[in-house]
Amino acid sequence: MVIGGGPPGENLAERTRAAGLRTVVVERELVGGECSYWACMPSKALLRPPAALAAARAVPGARAAVHGGLDVEEVLAHRDAFASGWQDDSQVRWLRSVDVELLRGQGRLAGPRSVVVTTPEGGELRLAARHAVALCTGSRATLPDLPGMAEARPWSSREATSARHVPDRLAVVGGGVVGVEMAAAWRALGAGVTLLARGESLLPRWEPFVGELVAEGLARAGVEVRTGASVSGLRRPDESGPVVVEVSGGNAVIAEEVLFATGRRPGTENLGLETVGLTPGDWLSTDDTLRVEGVPGGWLYGAGDVTHRAMLTHQGKYQARIAAEAIVARASDQRLDDSPWGRHAATADRRAVPQVVFTDPEAASVGLTLEEARQAGLRVRAVDYDLGSVAGAVLHAEGYRGRARAVVDLDREVLVGVTFVGSGVGELLHSATIAVAGEVPIARLWHAVPSFPTMSEVWLRLLETYRG
Amino acid sequence: MVIGGGPPGENLAERTRAAGLRTVVVERELVGGECSYWACMPSKALLRPPAALAAARAVPGARAAVHGGLDVEEVLAHRDAFASGWQDDSQVRWLRSVDVELLRGQGRLAGPRSVVVTTPEGGELRLAARHAVALCTGSRATLPDLPGMAEARPWSSREATSARHVPDRLAVVGGGVVGVEMAAAWRALGAGVTLLARGESLLPRWEPFVGELVAEGLARAGVEVRTGASVSGLRRPDESGPVVVEVSGGNAVIAEEVLFATGRRPGTENLGLETVGLTPGDWLSTDDTLRVEGVPGGWLYGAGDVTHRAMLTHQGKYQARIAAEAIVARASDQRLDDSPWGRHAATADRRAVPQVVFTDPEAASVGLTLEEARQAGLRVRAVDYDLGSVAGAVLHAEGYRGRARAVVDLDREVLVGVTFVGSGVGELLHSATIAVAGEVPIARLWHAVPSFPTMSEVWLRLLETYRG
Repeated sequence: MVIGGGPPGENLAERTRAAGLRTVVVERELVGGECSYWACMPSKALLRPPAALAAARAVPGARAAVHGGLDVEEVLAHRDAFASGWQDDSQVRWLRSVDVELLRGQGRLAGPRSVVVTTPEGGELRLAARHAVALCTGSRATLPDLPGMAEARPWSSREATSARHVPDRLAVVGGGVVGVEMAAAWRALGAGVTLLARGESLLPRWEPFVGELVAEGLARAGVEVRTGASVSGLRRPDESGPVVVEVSGGNAVIAEEVLFATGRRPGTENLGLETVGLTPGDWLSTDDTLRVEGVPGGWLYGAGDVTHRAMLTHQGKYQARIAAEAIVARASDQRLDDSPWGRHAATADRRAVPQVVFTDPEAASVGLTLEEARQAGLRVRAVDYDLGSVAGAVLHAEGYRGRARAVVDLDREVLVGVTFVGSGVGELLHSATIAVAGEVPIARLWHAVPSFPTMSEVWLRLLETYRG
Repeated sequence: MVIGGGPPGENLAERTRAAGLRTVVVERELVGGECSYWACMPSKALLRPPAALAAARAVPGARAAVHGGLDVEEVLAHRDAFASGWQDDSQVRWLRSVDVELLRGQGRLAGPRSVVVTTPEGGELRLAARHAVALCTGSRATLPDLPGMAEARPWSSREATSARHVPDRLAVVGGGVVGVEMAAAWRALGAGVTLLARGESLLPRWEPFVGELVAEGLARAGVEVRTGASVSGLRRPDESGPVVVEVSGGNAVIAEEVLFATGRRPGTENLGLETVGLTPGDWLSTDDTLRVEGVPGGWLYGAGDVTHRAMLTHQGKYQARIAAEAIVARASDQRLDDSPWGRHAATADRRAVPQVVFTDPEAASVGLTLEEARQAGLRVRAVDYDLGSVAGAVLHAEGYRGRARAVVDLDREVLVGVTFVGSGVGELLHSATIAVAGEVPIARLWHAVPSFPTMSEVWLRLLETYRG
């Protein structure tokens, strides 16, 4: 029994079914989940057109052919197509094609191995899971408790990825990934955007230079970036007029819409967690086989955002692959390999989580930052290189601005983290992910020759810098 | 003593000097070599502008802003800048900055450890090398011995990368990397291009689908691609008129210029090879420490094209790094590690050579093709995936056409070769290079999660396909 039909739920179900277990997915909304309709897919469909245009404008000889800006209606239609028009027909067909049953409705636990589904018609179905129940109910945007929030009718990530009209002015609250991406997207579509970040820099969990370069890129695109800006309240004096966003100790921002991208909470309310001894509203705590801790009998699993292991679609799908194999192994009394990097251990969640921010410049990182590595007690050294000094980067875009950092574990001589910032670095990241997850020794990376003149040559420069 | 100041010579010299050996580079032409002036740099400067424009045209919402084509003069000026105006001042400054001596002139061996340099003024210098002489004299384009070649005044790769005017019509002879790249570049600049390839497909050393997709891309760009077309002779009846390229059993091609991209020969003529028992005009045969075989005393090294190990700038630089460390180790009686992937063994030349072809679509590969792996006696399986089915690819470009292949060594469960074709795959390649050179087991690659929605997700699809 899988509750939640987003990417983790779908992937988990496909795999347990393929291994011979009868599998049911319960979904109360759209099969395909947040990623397909209100996150990755529509946001990247909004961000790719301005990135492609900016890339062409950055190349002498090509820029002369670029006149004017985006076709806003076409971008929005493109986004609609990538969100499948907010219809889940194709995903439902896919689930059927892999022989997984779909139950529409609200699923919740009703004691050990028991799930009750409230159907859209209000009926109730009670199901018993022989082997496992997997909770894949994701996360929801949180709104801070501020005066005037209700009358402000703020956007969450859902509205920011699905809005059909470009506001004249948009205030974005939050300097994390959703905040910077949506500020970039709506600015590119013509909105006047003010980004309010509470911290002293954008993307505070990343290497410090990332937030600096992304802020610089946003400013160049015309976004007003205000760091150290704490929102104290909101007002929308005229219901059809603009919203006033009050900022502690600073000028208020007036905008047609305000987006709050300030955090997520687990999708564990109304899930019956209390019937198995857990607390509704908490994140699920899981071991590396994705089994929920604190539940006797070991029949309850979690995958995706709801586990708070790594809140990213690809990582949720990874957890689903590992969880499905663990469920199948336990169901058939196979030996479990839950040692680090074993077949049944989601070790990458702790050691090699990749993430790309699709702003201009892009940011991409995997593994630990220097600060995180130090806090983990590792003896490390950061090796930095200016991407703008790499021939492949300068060929890619005139005046290329970017930077790379590798964090070397000096005791094991392997990389524990890598970060790139710059135009087009998104596809560079997987090289680092393989190096970090593969624990490829530096002495061997020395034999992995980057092709000239690609941007990947930064790898050679990083290794040369490390070796001195 | 380093003869030849292209990238391998420069890199070798920098490293032996940094290790404390007095080092001299002898260069008869431009410091920086073929790559800087007549190959990688100018060719990529020609190819990036059309690639950037094509990428923007492929994205709904962005394409509306692209009108007309390249600014030809600006592209050529951009190319000139990347070829440093065919002046080597900056490279000479760099050599000085790393304290390497430069001797302008023609260097040649004059017996063991002895080099004679004929200076531009016609003087002669005789120098003795205490530790080593390294030959880094590269390769030259070869022209087939065909009737009428002289009167045709054909382009080689040098003219194709440095020409200052766009011919109305260009015939390109040769379906290898230089042929397809230059056909793409000059077509993008407005020339009518006919590509004549003797074989039945383009890029015959690559996986078969590569030539197919690149031919399709060239045809879409308006290049007339003729395979199985053998040139039998040339005529330029009027000295200032077009050239007639006769094709065996087919229609002749009439064009303002004809480029021959049909092969390379070693830069070993007039190099005094005969004074040390080698044959002028032969490629140098080297061991994995880059020492030339068959020369008593072990003082002669080679790096770059002249060794015929892997005719690519980045691989020549890799050889230079390995050779320099070997020279220094031997000079200081350090232990040599010439075991596979050791510090002093250029193992990647045989196992993990990466290459990118900057056409549209791009092609990128590392390691062995399926055919090569089979011929090497490996028990292998090819795993293919359609890149056009990857979300990140379809977000990158509408109607994305591309393909990926991984060649799995079934006995060791590692990848021995990977090939990608498609728009923007160039930066994807280094992930494969690390996987192949790092011999990362498939079971561990399973934990290297590609970030969604990048094109790199094709990695997950390949691994899923392999695992079934």
